Amino acid sequence: MSFKPEQLHVDFGARAYSIWIGPHLLDSAPGSIGGFLPTGTAALIVSNSTVAPLYAQSVASLLASHYPHIHTVTLPDGEQHKTWQTLNLIFDALLTHGCDRKVVLYALGGGVIGDMTGFAAACYMRGVDFVQVPTTLLAQVDSSVGGKTGINHPLGKNMVGAFHQPRLVICDLSTLSTLPARELAAGIAEVIKYGPIADMELFAWLEEHMDALLARDPQALAHAVRRSCEIKAQVVGADEREAGLRAILNFGHTFGHAIEAGMGYGQWLHGEGVAAGMVMAAELSRRLGLVDGDFVQRLRQLIARAGLPVRGPVLDAQDNAGRYLELMRVDKKAQGGEIRFVLIEQPGKAVLRAAPDALVREVIDACCAE
Amino acid sequence: MSFKPEQLHVDFGARAYSIWIGPHLLDSAPGSIGGFLPTGTAALIVSNSTVAPLYAQSVASLLASHYPHIHTVTLPDGEQHKTWQTLNLIFDALLTHGCDRKVVLYALGGGVIGDMTGFAAACYMRGVDFVQVPTTLLAQVDSSVGGKTGINHPLGKNMVGAFHQPRLVICDLSTLSTLPARELAAGIAEVIKYGPIADMELFAWLEEHMDALLARDPQALAHAVRRSCEIKAQVVGADEREAGLRAILNFGHTFGHAIEAGMGYGQWLHGEGVAAGMVMAAELSRRLGLVDGDFVQRLRQLIARAGLPVRGPVLDAQDNAGRYLELMRVDKKAQGGEIRFVLIEQPGKAVLRAAPDALVREVIDACCAE
Repeated sequence: MSFKPEQLHVDFGARAYSIWIGPHLLDSAPGSIGGFLPTGTAALIVSNSTVAPLYAQSVASLLASHYPHIHTVTLPDGEQHKTWQTLNLIFDALLTHGCDRKVVLYALGGGVIGDMTGFAAACYMRGVDFVQVPTTLLAQVDSSVGGKTGINHPLGKNMVGAFHQPRLVICDLSTLSTLPARELAAGIAEVIKYGPIADMELFAWLEEHMDALLARDPQALAHAVRRSCEIKAQVVGADEREAGLRAILNFGHTFGHAIEAGMGYGQWLHGEGVAAGMVMAAELSRRLGLVDGDFVQRLRQLIARAGLPVRGPVLDAQDNAGRYLELMRVDKKAQGGEIRFVLIEQPGKAVLRAAPDALVREVIDACCAE
Repeated sequence: MSFKPEQLHVDFGARAYSIWIGPHLLDSAPGSIGGFLPTGTAALIVSNSTVAPLYAQSVASLLASHYPHIHTVTLPDGEQHKTWQTLNLIFDALLTHGCDRKVVLYALGGGVIGDMTGFAAACYMRGVDFVQVPTTLLAQVDSSVGGKTGINHPLGKNMVGAFHQPRLVICDLSTLSTLPARELAAGIAEVIKYGPIADMELFAWLEEHMDALLARDPQALAHAVRRSCEIKAQVVGADEREAGLRAILNFGHTFGHAIEAGMGYGQWLHGEGVAAGMVMAAELSRRLGLVDGDFVQRLRQLIARAGLPVRGPVLDAQDNAGRYLELMRVDKKAQGGEIRFVLIEQPGKAVLRAAPDALVREVIDACCAE
């Protein structure tokens, strides 16, 4: 990869920040990206047992001339560790090393690391700076942008968290070379998502370049990451606290979260649940008369080409639709027990609305594997 | 008590809120204070095993006509329970009852309940509304105003938390009738604090009305609470995130936190540590040439009249000053290991600055009990 890194700007007024996208950013010579790192009395690199051996040393080298002290804490890998107990390992490290309010946390890993590190930064001494260094496609195109942070509770995913914007996001495309194929595909699910809700040009581009993406062609990855971050930054910039517009980013997520929760976290990857969930949400949109069958079919085909599931799993042999509904009612977007779905009003435009239970049941029955 | 409740306004722009101060507010007829309660799909009253039996029913009655569902969770009482484990009981209650983002939390109790409930509200689904119903003098004059929330970590007090403003503060002076004398005095310590840092008129008023306060004279309590909230609201309104000015509210707290931590939390009440800490901070100010001995003596006498300690405890028989310094270096206001003290520049005006270790050692040696 020889092209230059790109810099995107995310505007939250006083809390504006940059997203750097490019190859070999972590191997940069001191002085390149270095000038953009936030100042601090120390840096704490937070990573997991899978990613730390691959990239923690590179990040430490990049930071070496910027902070008087650099510490690392390595967490166990996996969604099942997105808990208070694991989060507390970050606080333990911060306090054991005597880190003050001017410490900067570096989240080196996927979405789980980013969410937990961001939440630790939001809470440590009531708020310190952090930088996202996402090493999965999912994190680069979705979770590292927008400031949502948090942990899971035994009774619900991401139920405890905060809005806390990073000071900088470093998307090093080279780190995607070590990503397992299944996780690459799960990340592509979130890229696909931006098409139906905001940009059918991106959707058409994906139809043309899916093979290049799956082959990890650097230019294709760069385009997918940049366009995804642009759309997400635009939506989030207009609605940081999820009062309305921002909810459209959850297209496929209401069904997807039910799948993840119903199967047990970690069985289906987040992106896999979202993939099947997008088909279900599109089908619900069709049955409400918003989009036609051709659009649903086009979406289904693109998802299948990425190697992602287009059908939901059966969560309950007796009353599968009932189980889905039950799980969806505890979704954070639900209000007074009413589920609000992100639906496609027309290709490229999403809307948030409720739907009759009977219709949702029909969709679930039609869209789940036997 | 027959006088009318007063309403103070705290201005954070979009997040402005009111503080109601008066007797019998929790027994109000529906429609009086009720019109000011935030709307929601449910209310969760968070209290502790000491306060809930006294006032939870009154609060539930007050809320009955405003929320479709009212739940209560009772936490164990005491600073030693200001932990993640106890906090999690609030999340358990919220999720078990299926509370959505439109739930309103009511913090009914002292500072520990207020801090934990506020932090739970800051984090639940990334932020829901909460109302402070402080039932201790300390909470009414200090912790319920300003939006600081959090829990303790085994390695430091209030190390994990958030800034989250309440939607409303209800200071029912009648609840102070059940407050133990030792806790009343601890609350008075924070009232005294506002004198040296901001308002020597309040200080003179306290010299005149200390006996009335200790006798829980309603008019005296009302004046102390109102003036304290006014000063705190003014300071916090100018500096919500503790960038500078707000730190002056921590007069006496740097030494005080060391005392609390060094003795083991719960041994000395927060206000007791602050009381002895204010004498030490005043003495440090004197030795730096900022104030004269008469002022220090006047402060010491007022603190003693409230029945509060004017000398710090010996935390280490071998190297007491060293132990204090060690504990103060992990204070949240420390930066790069340098302790920043709130000192009195002149009576009624505080300043944040560092001091030579040798001088701090002299002050500790002079101000600790043999």
